[in-house]
Amino acid sequence: MDERIRRHAEVLVDQCAAVERGDMVRVNAPAVAEDLVVAVYERLGEIGARPTLAWRNSRASRAFDRAMDPEDYTRSDHTLAMLEETDAYIGINGARNLAETSDVSPENMTAARRENKDLQEALKETRWVGTQYPAPGDAQKAGMSTEAYEDFVYRAVDRDWDAQREFQAQMVEILDDASEVRIVSGEETDLTMSVDGMIAENDADDNNMPGGEAFTAPVPDSVEGTVRFDKPRMWRGEEILDARLTFEDGEVVEYSARQKEDALEEILNTDDGARRIGELGIGMNRGIDRFTYNMLFDEKMGDTVHLALGSAYDENVGEDREQNDSAIHVDMITDMSEDSFIEVDGEIVQRDGTFIFEDGFEE
Amino acid sequence: MDERIRRHAEVLVDQCAAVERGDMVRVNAPAVAEDLVVAVYERLGEIGARPTLAWRNSRASRAFDRAMDPEDYTRSDHTLAMLEETDAYIGINGARNLAETSDVSPENMTAARRENKDLQEALKETRWVGTQYPAPGDAQKAGMSTEAYEDFVYRAVDRDWDAQREFQAQMVEILDDASEVRIVSGEETDLTMSVDGMIAENDADDNNMPGGEAFTAPVPDSVEGTVRFDKPRMWRGEEILDARLTFEDGEVVEYSARQKEDALEEILNTDDGARRIGELGIGMNRGIDRFTYNMLFDEKMGDTVHLALGSAYDENVGEDREQNDSAIHVDMITDMSEDSFIEVDGEIVQRDGTFIFEDGFEE
Repeated sequence: MDERIRRHAEVLVDQCAAVERGDMVRVNAPAVAEDLVVAVYERLGEIGARPTLAWRNSRASRAFDRAMDPEDYTRSDHTLAMLEETDAYIGINGARNLAETSDVSPENMTAARRENKDLQEALKETRWVGTQYPAPGDAQKAGMSTEAYEDFVYRAVDRDWDAQREFQAQMVEILDDASEVRIVSGEETDLTMSVDGMIAENDADDNNMPGGEAFTAPVPDSVEGTVRFDKPRMWRGEEILDARLTFEDGEVVEYSARQKEDALEEILNTDDGARRIGELGIGMNRGIDRFTYNMLFDEKMGDTVHLALGSAYDENVGEDREQNDSAIHVDMITDMSEDSFIEVDGEIVQRDGTFIFEDGFEE
Repeated sequence: MDERIRRHAEVLVDQCAAVERGDMVRVNAPAVAEDLVVAVYERLGEIGARPTLAWRNSRASRAFDRAMDPEDYTRSDHTLAMLEETDAYIGINGARNLAETSDVSPENMTAARRENKDLQEALKETRWVGTQYPAPGDAQKAGMSTEAYEDFVYRAVDRDWDAQREFQAQMVEILDDASEVRIVSGEETDLTMSVDGMIAENDADDNNMPGGEAFTAPVPDSVEGTVRFDKPRMWRGEEILDARLTFEDGEVVEYSARQKEDALEEILNTDDGARRIGELGIGMNRGIDRFTYNMLFDEKMGDTVHLALGSAYDENVGEDREQNDSAIHVDMITDMSEDSFIEVDGEIVQRDGTFIFEDGFEE
């Protein structure tokens, strides 16, 4: 077995899910990720945990979702009962065909998502982690050979996570102490927001593997200015290109896109909270050096910033601060590697991707 | 998709597990059986049941079982919690490599089985069925090409189960009314037993797919005579050939085998009940026309009789009758197609494989 797979398993079990002897562990994975599942099971055996293995199967889900009557859609009480007795959860993605559910009607897909919400909430009560196995379908989406994609995934995952965490902590500290953040890139992006009283977090070897970002939430009403997202955003299988948003008093007042503007409109019309920003994230994983149409990686890419329309994370919102609430959380990404800077309380803290605490930084 | 797979799924869901709208269903399958899982999921969607999918993975189990310390082996409380909320269970076997767990120590295997007992009991409280997908590893064990093995499996499974049940009912009625049964085959097998007060059952499209037997339990002390099992019996990966057992007052008093006599001895020494017969079964599925080293099929083969050393099934034991109790239930098979007969209360009811209620029967 590829030694990188063993190390991937170890970081998932030991660090991300912090599994201990006697823990009840649920592993959820597609068949294509078998090698990683085997390595995870070996590590769980060594620790003395007790795993159960769920099979994430998009062909079966598609067949079920197409055949069902959305009116019949009831909660999965047996899965819920299991999750309530689960201490740690390791969710592994990996696709042979990312278009497998493309012929399920939106109505049935929505019914399926409704049920997932209950399970997601129970899952969040566990020590959970989500990760990616380098499967052919994901490689295809990234426009890469499977082997090149494996190298890409392991450059992002197979890191010294203690060092990565320390590196990110420097930016987390800056964000946590900040009142006003300004993001400037090229001619079109110049956005300011207050993060005063909000809590910045460090995402390393925690709930995402790979992690690699410093993130916080803006004060909902404080966002002002314009942002252009120069990385594509997928929505229901279609690609929104060059989305531009203008904010006043925290709310989107103008929007456009070069492609699929109607999808962008659909996102914004989800609910009131969908027209406000719930997250500001700064990508800091330099192992991720290209865009691959997979948010797990894209949002942590070095030299990028992402903003999410919709709900804010609980952990980012200060005690006396308002939390933006929405049914969605849609991350969108802006490149910061050229002609760009991040300013915090009047001081530039990143220019063209280089942080103030790095060699080569020029104010 | 092969239409036989769809019909297999339908009989599993509709007949064997009798799934209804709103049922919580657990499907447990290996990746190699994906086509059958997809067909089962489609049918569950049509009915409006709610499935969850467990992945039976022998590589992962092996890795875990080898790595663990048997002392650490704790019950799978999360799986148990799920089973307690499960209405119907569809378990699918199918191997790429039947020797996958051959390098797990007996000590660790035993620890794994100990935990399974709790889960098996919870599972028996559901409407459950076990079946087989025609996978390459099983085909190899049977000495058949995968395609020939597919044909074999579907000849056994893809039947008119109402007609099969009626056919078997004739033998069930004979056994149920019987006091004494005598099995004679060739020079060596001549065994008598009382089934007085015991309850004969009809196994068609119930807990096994394929089904295909009439079965009952002997009165434990009543078995007398000698039997030679001319079909091989696997035990911990090894093949016992031509096992011969002699009974007095229901207990084995002599035994021998042409190969792996020590394995036969190990079976008999499990506990007191392991030296007595817990089941008499009569194979009646004529779709099964060859021995394939898979008890699910072998014990239902037309023109055979099987006896199990060890525990008797609850449903076979009359209210005022003793139930043979043991940690094991080891079926062994005798061919009845030539030079053989079954006698019930002095009347021959099967000769050379042909039943008294069939054309061509000669007393």
